[in-house]
Amino acid sequence: MTDIAADDPVQLLKALIACPSVTPEPAGVLDVLDTALSSLGFTTAHLRFEGDGSYPVDNLFAIRGNGGRSLLFAGHTDVVPPGELADWTADPFTPREADGKLYGRGAADMKSGISAFIAAAASIPADVGTIMLAITNDEEADAINGTDKLMAWAKDQGHSFDFAIVGEPSSATLLGDSIKIGRRGSFSGLITVEGAQGHVAYPHKANNPLPTLARIVIALSDTQIDQGSEHFPATNLEVTTIDVGNPISNVIPARGTVRFNIRYNDLWTPQTLAEWVRDRIASVDANGTRIGFEVSGTPSRSFLSPLSADVETLSATIESITGRRPELSTGGGTSDARFIAQYGPVVECGLVGPSMHKADEHIALDDLTGLTEIYRAFMTRFFAGPAA
Amino acid sequence: MTDIAADDPVQLLKALIACPSVTPEPAGVLDVLDTALSSLGFTTAHLRFEGDGSYPVDNLFAIRGNGGRSLLFAGHTDVVPPGELADWTADPFTPREADGKLYGRGAADMKSGISAFIAAAASIPADVGTIMLAITNDEEADAINGTDKLMAWAKDQGHSFDFAIVGEPSSATLLGDSIKIGRRGSFSGLITVEGAQGHVAYPHKANNPLPTLARIVIALSDTQIDQGSEHFPATNLEVTTIDVGNPISNVIPARGTVRFNIRYNDLWTPQTLAEWVRDRIASVDANGTRIGFEVSGTPSRSFLSPLSADVETLSATIESITGRRPELSTGGGTSDARFIAQYGPVVECGLVGPSMHKADEHIALDDLTGLTEIYRAFMTRFFAGPAA
Repeated sequence: MTDIAADDPVQLLKALIACPSVTPEPAGVLDVLDTALSSLGFTTAHLRFEGDGSYPVDNLFAIRGNGGRSLLFAGHTDVVPPGELADWTADPFTPREADGKLYGRGAADMKSGISAFIAAAASIPADVGTIMLAITNDEEADAINGTDKLMAWAKDQGHSFDFAIVGEPSSATLLGDSIKIGRRGSFSGLITVEGAQGHVAYPHKANNPLPTLARIVIALSDTQIDQGSEHFPATNLEVTTIDVGNPISNVIPARGTVRFNIRYNDLWTPQTLAEWVRDRIASVDANGTRIGFEVSGTPSRSFLSPLSADVETLSATIESITGRRPELSTGGGTSDARFIAQYGPVVECGLVGPSMHKADEHIALDDLTGLTEIYRAFMTRFFAGPAA
Repeated sequence: MTDIAADDPVQLLKALIACPSVTPEPAGVLDVLDTALSSLGFTTAHLRFEGDGSYPVDNLFAIRGNGGRSLLFAGHTDVVPPGELADWTADPFTPREADGKLYGRGAADMKSGISAFIAAAASIPADVGTIMLAITNDEEADAINGTDKLMAWAKDQGHSFDFAIVGEPSSATLLGDSIKIGRRGSFSGLITVEGAQGHVAYPHKANNPLPTLARIVIALSDTQIDQGSEHFPATNLEVTTIDVGNPISNVIPARGTVRFNIRYNDLWTPQTLAEWVRDRIASVDANGTRIGFEVSGTPSRSFLSPLSADVETLSATIESITGRRPELSTGGGTSDARFIAQYGPVVECGLVGPSMHKADEHIALDDLTGLTEIYRAFMTRFFAGPAA
């Protein structure tokens, strides 16, 4: 470990892939980072968070500099399981170079992003500003004892940032063709409609809840929630299941349930969405039934980073290196950026993602070099002071 | 068994209750009847039917006379299980007289009806006409190898009838306050709506079947099927269950199912109802989903006996004995009369039913005597020739 050159992203990435850090087991991966970052003058802290219904998770926070502008880099060292080993050409935790590619679990998602950023930081003078890294070993699973708590801890320590980059694979097909400036939120709910059970031959002695339930499904599904916002598509609701489970053909059931999920843009919060759902339910004649509604789990908030001068600097940097101006995307699922967005502006900028989570996960070595150059050039411009 | 006086309904009923003839086990009950009927000059046939996906069932057919008008009496000797014995004051299969009542499983439903009819037949001269009895030991359960096959067998043997009485408890609160001249039919169906599964974040790549399914539920539930007919209430549909069973909150399901039951009057047949359901489904925009519909099981047909001179004779007979003219009812669930109605006019006329299927099932001994008198007086008038 001690002979890794922290300024060589390929060497660093190979050392990280060699640690089988399937969530939440770090398998030495945070020690590799600690060694590399310490060699570059970073102060590191190992933070184990636990509780809140999830397993304990190891995290790493690193900081260098104590003045000037402040940049946060965030990422995760944990990887999804390799799946069937027979589907891999070689051992997933033995890094393998072939045809200009580097293979191994985590090569794309996202040990490469971390390697590129550390290698880039190696050539940035320590006195130009403050660089922080927030690394978790639990992004792929619960994410309860990871970035969320790490950011809260950092705030408690007095750390703040002017801009943050999450090194997730954000490119669609070519390096730098897309960066993510926001994510939709996800909101799930459960509606229960309760009538009165009875025999189908005597419907006047019962109250069938299912027609009311069907009306609620339509009231939720047929209403356009919004028209989309400047950077987001329209908010969308899908009813995901309806369940009654009455096996008896001559019995009117007492109750039925509807579950739904909403993917929503920056026009909404979980609170305003819950209000919208209640309004839709109230638009339906309850017909004597009792209608209950509850939010399922914890909704993930949507976020949109302000289109600041720093985003423009990042876009211009990418264009100068790749020849392509990146799309400013808000598509796809959720990421740990949702936790960081509560503290300041954040974008996701990393490699090309198609092979992630699959067998023979890999990246192009040229892309790793290119991403390192993007991070380095961006930092040089970023620390030169806020753009006009 | 040989010392039972066939003309004493109480003695006969006690002998029948003593046989624990829970469906489909006859437990000697048909032998008691055979002995009683043979002593009255009836020719009997034991018929065991089996197959068609149900258990074998023992049935009894009896006939006396071979000319004149023809009367069929139908009933069942099987009883529902006694349930918790602790809920009974005494053994359910040991007949017990107390306070003018006779207790035991099957006392009301419907060993009493059979006993009353046989006792009544004992005083009818054998040469006034033809009396037939069709007795099954499976009315309470599948009813596949019971009255349905027994009636088909009787027809094959060349037996026909001018009028039929089913001895089910048809009275509401007082003996003879109601006879049933028809029954609604029962029709169950299954509708499947199939779309295309997908991720809730990418709804344009999926096709959620649940809004279409909800529209079908409303199209079925909200439409008045008819306004009722002269002797029947309006046909009514109840959706009995909706099931999707999708446990994943971020997945749009591929399909969902709706089950429903229709209780219908004499304006409909299973064929015309199926057509009505198809029309309702067709009224909904399928929105690219595939919608399947199938009839569940075998629908039971509705029937309405013609309001003939014989029905009038029965009503007048009841009024002359009880002082009350019976209501001509078509309410309640289904009975084996639906099988008999395919061959000729049939009514249900029997005791008061509230205690049936319950612990401490019982009848009033006065009612048993009264019903015997009703059957006897009716037969006397019936065989005197068709009323004008």
